[in-house]
This record gives sequence, C-alpha cells and structure tokens, in this order.
Amino acid sequence: MGEDELVLLDFWASPFCARVKIALAEKGVAFESRAEDLFNGKSELLLKSNPTYAKVPVLLHNGKSVNESSIIVSYVDETWASPALLPPCAYGKAQARFWADYIDKKVFEAGSSIWRSRGEELEVAKKEFLEIVRTLENELGDKAYFGGESFGYVDILLIGLVSWFDAYERFGSFKVEDESPKFAAWAKKCLLRESVANVIPEADKVYEFIAMMRKMNGIE
Amino acid sequence: MGEDELVLLDFWASPFCARVKIALAEKGVAFESRAEDLFNGKSELLLKSNPTYAKVPVLLHNGKSVNESSIIVSYVDETWASPALLPPCAYGKAQARFWADYIDKKVFEAGSSIWRSRGEELEVAKKEFLEIVRTLENELGDKAYFGGESFGYVDILLIGLVSWFDAYERFGSFKVEDESPKFAAWAKKCLLRESVANVIPEADKVYEFIAMMRKMNGIE
Repeated sequence: MGEDELVLLDFWASPFCARVKIALAEKGVAFESRAEDLFNGKSELLLKSNPTYAKVPVLLHNGKSVNESSIIVSYVDETWASPALLPPCAYGKAQARFWADYIDKKVFEAGSSIWRSRGEELEVAKKEFLEIVRTLENELGDKAYFGGESFGYVDILLIGLVSWFDAYERFGSFKVEDESPKFAAWAKKCLLRESVANVIPEADKVYEFIAMMRKMNGIE
Repeated sequence: MGEDELVLLDFWASPFCARVKIALAEKGVAFESRAEDLFNGKSELLLKSNPTYAKVPVLLHNGKSVNESSIIVSYVDETWASPALLPPCAYGKAQARFWADYIDKKVFEAGSSIWRSRGEELEVAKKEFLEIVRTLENELGDKAYFGGESFGYVDILLIGLVSWFDAYERFGSFKVEDESPKFAAWAKKCLLRESVANVIPEADKVYEFIAMMRKMNGIE
C-alpha cells in the first residue's frame, strides 16, 4: 500500500485527532498532517470533506474522506491489518464497540463540564466525571488493557481523551489517581508507549489552551 | 449454527428492539423474545445483562449478552454472514457507520422533543426534526437504499425509528411526506418488506403508547 496518499485534517490539541494519530502510528502508516485553524476559519477542504459537522479529524485516504474519530480508527484497523486493534471475533468486537460508545457518550462531555463550571456546579461535575472513570476502571479490572493482553481499539479511543485529564484535574483540584489508582496506572503505561508519547499534546499546553477557552467563555 | 440459543430482551414498542428483530429476520435466524416490563420492574436478567444502562434491547447469544441496538445489528451481521448488511469494503463500512452514528445521535431525540412539547417549543422541535430528515434524504439521494441497491445496516437502524414517525406527525400536525417525499417513499418501501412489516409495532398502538407517556409527563 506504498502508493496511498493519507492526509489528516488535524488540530494539535484535539483528543479526537490524537486517537487517529495513535492508530496510524500503531499501524506504522505515514500520513501528512494539515493543521486546521478552528478559530479563525476552517479550510474549504474541511467544509467539503465533512459537510455534516465541519469538524476535525478528517482522514483523507486517496482523496476519499472518513469522518468521526472512532469510525476513522475502525477504518484504519480494517484497512491496515497488522497489528489488529479490534478483537478478531464478533463478540469481542461488540464488547469493544460497546465501551467505545460509552466513552464517546460520556468522557469528553463530563470533562468539559469540569472546566466550564465553578462552585457547586463544579463539585457535581467532578463527581460525575469520577463516577465515569470508576465505571471504566471496573471494566478494565485486572486486565493489562481494555481488550486484554494487547493495546487496542478501546485503549486508543480512551487515551486520546486522557490527554486532557491533567487539565481537568488542575481546574477541578482533584486527582484521578486518588480515586481510581488502577485506571491511573493503565493511563501511565499507555502514555509511555511510543505511538502515544509521540502524538499526545503536552499537558501544560493543553492546560493553557483550556484556560484560553475558559476566558473566551467568561469563566475566568 | 443450529445449536445457538438466542434470546432477545424485548419491548413491543421500542424502535431499538425493532432494529434487532428486523436484522434477525433478514438473516433468517430464529430467536425467543422475552418481554420486559419497563414500567413495573425490569427483570433480574436485564439488570445483570446490561448493568451499565439496564435498557432493552439485549441479545443473549448462548448466554453472552450484547447491548446497544446498533452494536447488536453489527454483531448479527458479523455472526451470520448472509445476506450481508454492512458493505464489504472498509470505506463502505465507514460510510455506513457514519450515518448510523448520525441517526443514533439525532433522530430519536429530535422526535421525542416533538411529543414532549407544545406551542412555540413544538415549532422549534418540528423544524429541527424535519431538518434532520432532510439531511438523511439528501444522503439517500437517488439510491434505492442508504447502502445502494440492497436493504442494509443504515436502512435497518433508521426504519426501526420510523415506526414512531406517524405518532410524531400526529402530535406535531405535520407530514414528513410534504417536506421530504423521497425519504417518505424510501420509508414506505421498507415498511412493505416482510422482515420489517412482521416486526414493526402498529402505528395506532405506538400513538396510544406515546399519548400515555405524554400524560405521565404532564403534557396532556
């Protein structure tokens, strides 16, 4: 597949773009990242490639667009076979998709509620966020990764989002590690992985980025 | 696969349960439907099989549970090969999953806003609902089905939800057909299909069911 042209419409801080970059790194597939300026004007290419949402990430594979990060990671897994990210059997796939869907429904929104709020509202948001992390920790159990022995689909989707956890903790004055040590250990292990470490945005920069959004939203 | 034991934790009016029943009918797979009493107490089996949401449908395949209707339909497709519901290629799968996800995010919630509201709020809800239908009609274009020539994954997910459209139209005093005739023609064609006609709840009964929920919610 050496002839493939792969372009990612990208944004440095996006935890959803991070997912796609990790998946491509796991597969050893080279791509061109094109940075989108989400604040001052999206590119024509982005608007044309994702008319429904006009959001990054978009993966353009030989000019054909694939949208929505969890769907892109699935597409990457089906297009480049090795190493497999989703389990081989239908039941394993269904389990992975169930947790992917849970993560997509819950984690980012709950995290956003933390940095968007103050006072009592913040306390409620923290409680909800930590409850979600506890549910995920419970699903992880004593396994090395969500799918078992190897780093896979659910790990990629979740570790992308974890790149913002440090900022949530700082704005919310709490530590995930205090409540969910096994989850924190899983996250640390994943963050050390080359495919993740090379791609995940720096914690301090994410913190500054969210601080800027807080100012834009009149929270600070 | 004659030895398989298939049990569906089911609710007659659920558009999400309808999806699973249509998929199993398309595959010609027999199953046992176990009706859940969602109002007076869910079964222990449901609570145990879907601890995260405690919602129907749950498909129990030889005792192992699969949850979330769009994931169940995907599982059914991967477990019983013929006829294929998702396209064979990775790109076709990604496209189907994108629209499945759009439908899951938008349609049921927008429809619920119609029957839950009155007055000006109702007008806003109708407008939003019809905009979503228009987006779907646009995606359908001149194709026979969402995936092309044959009835497939996206059709199944959407036609399950269409079983409530008649009630939305009656409570909202509008007709999808007036705004989106191509969409309405697609729906009519799908509703005549044996796998759908045998499974979809009767429009009048759905209307009465939603009228009951409106009363419970103090809307009527």
